[in-house]
Amino acid sequence: MTTHIGLLGCGTVGAAVAEMLLTEKTLLARRSGQTLALKRILIRDRAKARSPAIPTTLYTTNPDDILNDPEIRIVVEVMGGVNPAKTFSLRALKAGKLLVTANKHLLALHGAQIFRAAAQADSCVGFEASCGGAIPIVLALTRGLVANEIQQVVGIVNGTCNYILSEMSATGKSYSVALAEAQAAGFAEPDPTLDVTGGDSAHKLAILAALAFGGQVPFGRIHVSGINHIDDMDLRFGRELGYVCKLLAIAEKHGQSISLRVHPTFIARQHLLGNVNGSFNAIAVVGHVSGQTIYYGRGAGGRPTASAVLADIVEAAMGTAPLLFKKLPLLNHRAALRILPIENVSSRHYLRMQVLDRPGMLHQITGILGQRGISLAAMVQHEARNDQYVPLVIMTHAAPDGNVVEALTKIDRLRGIRSPTRHIRVIDPPF
Amino acid sequence: MTTHIGLLGCGTVGAAVAEMLLTEKTLLARRSGQTLALKRILIRDRAKARSPAIPTTLYTTNPDDILNDPEIRIVVEVMGGVNPAKTFSLRALKAGKLLVTANKHLLALHGAQIFRAAAQADSCVGFEASCGGAIPIVLALTRGLVANEIQQVVGIVNGTCNYILSEMSATGKSYSVALAEAQAAGFAEPDPTLDVTGGDSAHKLAILAALAFGGQVPFGRIHVSGINHIDDMDLRFGRELGYVCKLLAIAEKHGQSISLRVHPTFIARQHLLGNVNGSFNAIAVVGHVSGQTIYYGRGAGGRPTASAVLADIVEAAMGTAPLLFKKLPLLNHRAALRILPIENVSSRHYLRMQVLDRPGMLHQITGILGQRGISLAAMVQHEARNDQYVPLVIMTHAAPDGNVVEALTKIDRLRGIRSPTRHIRVIDPPF
Repeated sequence: MTTHIGLLGCGTVGAAVAEMLLTEKTLLARRSGQTLALKRILIRDRAKARSPAIPTTLYTTNPDDILNDPEIRIVVEVMGGVNPAKTFSLRALKAGKLLVTANKHLLALHGAQIFRAAAQADSCVGFEASCGGAIPIVLALTRGLVANEIQQVVGIVNGTCNYILSEMSATGKSYSVALAEAQAAGFAEPDPTLDVTGGDSAHKLAILAALAFGGQVPFGRIHVSGINHIDDMDLRFGRELGYVCKLLAIAEKHGQSISLRVHPTFIARQHLLGNVNGSFNAIAVVGHVSGQTIYYGRGAGGRPTASAVLADIVEAAMGTAPLLFKKLPLLNHRAALRILPIENVSSRHYLRMQVLDRPGMLHQITGILGQRGISLAAMVQHEARNDQYVPLVIMTHAAPDGNVVEALTKIDRLRGIRSPTRHIRVIDPPF
Repeated sequence: MTTHIGLLGCGTVGAAVAEMLLTEKTLLARRSGQTLALKRILIRDRAKARSPAIPTTLYTTNPDDILNDPEIRIVVEVMGGVNPAKTFSLRALKAGKLLVTANKHLLALHGAQIFRAAAQADSCVGFEASCGGAIPIVLALTRGLVANEIQQVVGIVNGTCNYILSEMSATGKSYSVALAEAQAAGFAEPDPTLDVTGGDSAHKLAILAALAFGGQVPFGRIHVSGINHIDDMDLRFGRELGYVCKLLAIAEKHGQSISLRVHPTFIARQHLLGNVNGSFNAIAVVGHVSGQTIYYGRGAGGRPTASAVLADIVEAAMGTAPLLFKKLPLLNHRAALRILPIENVSSRHYLRMQVLDRPGMLHQITGILGQRGISLAAMVQHEARNDQYVPLVIMTHAAPDGNVVEALTKIDRLRGIRSPTRHIRVIDPPF
């Protein structure tokens, strides 16, 4: 039996999905047992140059040609962005179609509504491609680790940021140079804002945390800071102390609450996540019986993401996805997760102050830290060079985030400190 | 609806599965939506001390109490070994029960028969726990990467060997000392033969290759060599050249054929697999669209393996496993894979000869290599110390395995060579 598919969008991912459906029918049928037929592709602009592998007769600019076609069983949304992707997705579900989406932005903000619509329509949503590109992380969290109480999810989930940080670490380049090179090499968008500010990572974290902990994630409560203020000097100091810097998306269980945060983070250099370089992604998951598992692969790009989209299409066509969607509570949770604000999350902190080289400064600084229960684990101060301010690097013992931020505000107001003090959180095993 | 479960075996894994089913009912129901009830446990020896968490009333020494009980829907085989596990598994399937097994030995040797019996009975076999412990690698190969032509599978799939090799590398210990310590620490069995000779890795490779390439694996055609002849001197030379040694299970596609081999292998030190240490496992899979993905976690132990067994139990109870088993050809292939013998597999090779320190030796050696098309990429010779024989280390360019083995036979017959020449294959990216 042939399963007909309609594609909403034909950008990098959409074109790769279309090409596979058109040119790899035999492979797909041999491996999946399913006969998949691409029927229509919604595009915005007929004038744009497209893949020569895709017959132009498939294109339409009218969404009704897909959403109202009773023969189309699976709708694949690869437009990206919130609208009109949201409207089309809800219409597809309401029309009884099975939805496959790669849209992390949409799911992070309106996932609950989309999933509810799928449940009401006795349909399903496949969204493996929304996080981690080719990495089957949704599969791992919902199926492979289903018997675990998940304790922690830690991911490098944005290839652009990881590419830039890897380049900065490897070559000592500044952030702006590394970004410009990443753009030239096609690893960063012309407007990289959503990537470098951590927004894209936060979208993925919202999806991963909902699956891991079985609850809705209030997106606005994720603490997000990006890599756009990273100074290469801090990467060098980190290295000296045995760390590499990664933009991590972190969700952790603390009793009945979950903390959710995206920020540049120092990891021990020998940890596997510290060795994930370039545009690759990796996600570490700690379960109470599995222990730590890690999933690594290409987190973006047309073909790797198409690999995940096709996997979802196959499960929808086989009928396992709708069955699973009905049965597995992880996919259909209603209650919101209880969030622990970052202020209450305890971790070690790397601090770099620019300190006027004069007596008494260190005494004042340690006083402010000590009053808030923040003790020092390590300290590095190099001699001043052509500058009356010298970098003073402090690695603290674990302390609540709020105390550290408060101390830094106070320190930055001291005479003899050139603000802002640089601040990178440290993550310790098990993660 | 409650799903009743019968357990065959109550060793490390069986006890962990039983404990989870008994003590984590609420967690399992909340996450999976399934009410699972452990009804009976087959044991051999009533006198043996058992987990206090398991009521003794569950135990039976009569397999009929499980295999003939119509209420038991899922039979979990965690006895290990080929017999009577095989008989019991076939009986369970014939009785219409869903089978979950952690038995790699059984599946590697008789998987085709077990799978055929499952298909005939309209049942299914869950075997996530047979490879890679907690790592959801079966899920990744059969579902996440279903749209890929798999090109390569490379795994560190035996924790005992990886523990021993990691210790040898980190500390310079000899194989026998590292083995004895691994036994003392519980990371190696009192009889470690099946692990250290590579047999256990070959079992897992047979299962992984069948899934990856969609065909039956003739187990006897896997080339297997273990770590039991590894000399710590070679690990030091490898390190000098930038490599670490891992026991790798490798399956590769060459046109229409597949090569299958387990042997100690040098990997570049900076590769992620080169950083997998201790008893951990990791499996790298290259798909034609996904690119490389890697899966890492605990490959053995009661609770990590129970995590995978429970995941299979949940899919069986939900009904997705039987549906999938019926629909997915990857799980039910009939044709045998066409095997490329290791002689025809081309790779680089590390060779260490013990050479009498006299003129003309290098000339003879390079002559033998050159005649077989084997060219040298690097060479290390240190000065002799208290021995008239000096180690001569050669790293070759890629050459067919058969040529290298033939050359070594010839070299080992030279006067002035103390045989056997040590030989470790090298794996190069992409893997």
